[in-house]
Amino acid sequence: MTQADPAGPSWITAAVRALPPYKGPTQLADFPSGSRIHALHLNECPYPPSPRVVAAIAAAAGQINRYPDIPARALAAALAARTGVPPSCIVFGTGSDELIHLICEVALRGGDRVVVPAPTFPRYAMSGRILGAEVTRVRIEAAGANDAAGLVAAIDGRTRVVFCCTPNPPSGGMMDAAALERLARGTPDDVLLAVDEAYYEFGRHAGGPDAAEVLRSRRGAWVVLRTFSKAYGLAALRVGYALCGSEEVAGALRKIKLQYNVTSLGQVAALAALSDEAHLRTTLDNTARERQRLADGMTRLGLKPLPSAANFVSAEAPMAASSCMTELQKRRVLIRDWRDPDYPNHIRVTVGLPDDTDAVIAALGGVLAARAAPLQARA
Amino acid sequence: MTQADPAGPSWITAAVRALPPYKGPTQLADFPSGSRIHALHLNECPYPPSPRVVAAIAAAAGQINRYPDIPARALAAALAARTGVPPSCIVFGTGSDELIHLICEVALRGGDRVVVPAPTFPRYAMSGRILGAEVTRVRIEAAGANDAAGLVAAIDGRTRVVFCCTPNPPSGGMMDAAALERLARGTPDDVLLAVDEAYYEFGRHAGGPDAAEVLRSRRGAWVVLRTFSKAYGLAALRVGYALCGSEEVAGALRKIKLQYNVTSLGQVAALAALSDEAHLRTTLDNTARERQRLADGMTRLGLKPLPSAANFVSAEAPMAASSCMTELQKRRVLIRDWRDPDYPNHIRVTVGLPDDTDAVIAALGGVLAARAAPLQARA
Repeated sequence: MTQADPAGPSWITAAVRALPPYKGPTQLADFPSGSRIHALHLNECPYPPSPRVVAAIAAAAGQINRYPDIPARALAAALAARTGVPPSCIVFGTGSDELIHLICEVALRGGDRVVVPAPTFPRYAMSGRILGAEVTRVRIEAAGANDAAGLVAAIDGRTRVVFCCTPNPPSGGMMDAAALERLARGTPDDVLLAVDEAYYEFGRHAGGPDAAEVLRSRRGAWVVLRTFSKAYGLAALRVGYALCGSEEVAGALRKIKLQYNVTSLGQVAALAALSDEAHLRTTLDNTARERQRLADGMTRLGLKPLPSAANFVSAEAPMAASSCMTELQKRRVLIRDWRDPDYPNHIRVTVGLPDDTDAVIAALGGVLAARAAPLQARA
Repeated sequence: MTQADPAGPSWITAAVRALPPYKGPTQLADFPSGSRIHALHLNECPYPPSPRVVAAIAAAAGQINRYPDIPARALAAALAARTGVPPSCIVFGTGSDELIHLICEVALRGGDRVVVPAPTFPRYAMSGRILGAEVTRVRIEAAGANDAAGLVAAIDGRTRVVFCCTPNPPSGGMMDAAALERLARGTPDDVLLAVDEAYYEFGRHAGGPDAAEVLRSRRGAWVVLRTFSKAYGLAALRVGYALCGSEEVAGALRKIKLQYNVTSLGQVAALAALSDEAHLRTTLDNTARERQRLADGMTRLGLKPLPSAANFVSAEAPMAASSCMTELQKRRVLIRDWRDPDYPNHIRVTVGLPDDTDAVIAALGGVLAARAAPLQARA
C-alpha cells in the first residue's frame, strides 16, 4: 500500500485512490484548428513518416477486419536480424509505455520496491505506485546521465526491478558502455534490470552504446525497451518492443499481456520504417543539426544547456519552469517543465524543424527579456 | 496470492508464476500464404471495413509522427451524441480487452474477489488472477445467457467487481432488460458492475436491450464496455470504449491508463465507421442471415445449436470439441472449442461469408460422418 489512503469508494484499491487525478499535457487539439503552433513539448519527431510507411498503411487498410498477427512475425524477424535477439525473446507493446507497465505488473506487488532514476520518464514510478510498490528515486548525475553506482546502491532485499533510461529524459544525458556494464554487474541476478532506450537511435548517432549488446553478458534477468515513436516517427501508432534477456523474461511478459495489442497497421508501418534506412539517417542528421542550433541559441540567451544525445535539449531557466512554459505557450510555443520538485526551473525543449528552433529561441528570448526588464527597472 | 506457487525466479510475483504459459489461437500466418482458410474461430467480421474508413486512414497516415489525441475528442463527441453518456465519462482502450484489465487493476488486489460468468470471455478471470484476486465462476443459464440471480448470489464481502457479458461468448445468449435490471439492483453499491457488450450491435439488431440505458438507474458504480472490433470490423485497430456510470469511475480508469493507447488511425477509422450507418446495417443484416443458415446447417447435421444474438453459433458436438477443432483444421476450417472443463464437447463457430457457412457445414458433416462410421461398423 502507498502512503496515504484518501477517501474514495471502497471498490477502488488504496494504491489507486492515493494517486492524483490524471492531468495530461496541452495538445494541438486544444488550439483552434489552423493555428500554427510550435509543438516542442512531447519529444515527437517533426518529420512525416517515410513514404514507404504511408504506402504500407494504405495497402493494409482494407484488411483491418481481421485481428493483428499476435507475435508480429514479420516485424519480429526484421528486428531479430538487426539485434541478434531471437523473435521468441522480442515482445511488442502499445508503445514502450505498455511494456514498462507489464514489467511492473509481472514483478511488483504491495510492499515490493522499484528503483528509478530521478528525474526520468514518469511511467516507471507511476506503474510501480499503481501496483502498490514503493519507489526509490536515485538522482541523475550532474551532466544528466543515469548514475549507475547510485542505482546499484539503492537496491535492497525488497527490490524486484531497477529501471534505467539512456539517453534519459528530460536531461538528455547518456550512459557509456562502462557505466551500463557496472549497472549490469551490480544488479543482483534476482532483480530485473530494465533499460529503456526509447531514444536509442539518437544515442547511437551520437556515438553511444547499444545496451542490449552490453547486457548480453549479464547472468540475471534483463530487458531493453525501444520504440518506433521517436526516431522512426510513428508516435501515433503505438509500437514499442522489449528485447528480453531470456525466454523466461519474455514468457512472463507474454503470460499477462493482452492477446492483441499492437495494431496490424502499426506492424506494417514499423516494418516499412525499418526498411527505409535513408529516411532514418536524414531524420537523425537533421535532428543533430537542429539540436546544436537549439543549444547554441540557448547559450546565446545566457542559459547553460545540458549535453543531449536525444531529440530534446534541457536547461535551467532563471525563472520557474512552469511560468516559462506558460509564457511561451502565449507565444504559440509549447515546451515542458521537468515536473520534478528538485529541478523547479529546468525546461525541456524538443528538437523540431528549423523554423521551430528559430521560433522557440525568439520566444524564449522575449520571455527572458520581459522578466529581466522589471528587475533592471528596479535597479 | 493464487493457489500454487511453482518454481520460478523470485522477481516474478507468485500470481504470475502460477499462470500457465501463454498459448494463443491458430492464426492465418500459420498457413502458407495464398491458402484459402475459413477463419471462423475468432469472431471476426468477415467484411472489409467501410470505404470511408479506408479513406480516413489514408488521409491521416501522413501525420502519424504526432502522438494521438489523448481524450480522442472527435470520437468521444460522436459516441456521446449516440449514447447520451458525456465525453468525460467515456474512456478508450486498446480494444475492450485493455479496459477489462484496467477495471481489474483499479479494483483488485491479492485477497479480493471478482465474480465472472462461466464460460465467458477469458480475460475477466485472467486479469483477476494476474492481480492475485480469487475468481468466483457463475455458470451461465442453459440457454446460454448470463444468470443475473446467480451472479448476485455469488457476491460476498470480499467482492470488488462483477463481470457480466451480453450477448455472451461462447454461448451467444443475451440477457433481457429485466435480467440486467435485477443484476443492477442486486449488486451492492460498493461493488463495480462491469457489463461487457462487445457484441452490442448484433444484440440490438436481434431485439436486445441497451445495457447502458438500463444501468443508468443504478446508484452504485457501473461501466459498460463496447468495441469497434466486431460489428464495425476494425479488429486490427484495437479500439474499445467504456461508458462509465460516473466521473468517479472514469477518473479512476484515467488515473492508471497509459497516456497514449488508442492510435490516431484507430480514432479516425472508428469515427468514419460510425458515420457509415448503411455499411453497419448491411453487416448486421448479412450476419443475421448467415447465422440462421449456419444454425440450420448444424441442425440438419443433428446438432442442437444454442440461440445466438451475436456473430457466432455454438452447439454440443458428439465428440470432444478439441478433436472436432483439429479435424476441421485439416479441412482448412478453423473453429473454437469452449475452453471450459464443464463443456468439453461444445464448439463455437463464427458467422462468416456465405461460402464460409457452406464450407464449415460440409466439413463438419464430413468430420461427424467419419466419426460415426467406425461406430456403425462396430455395431
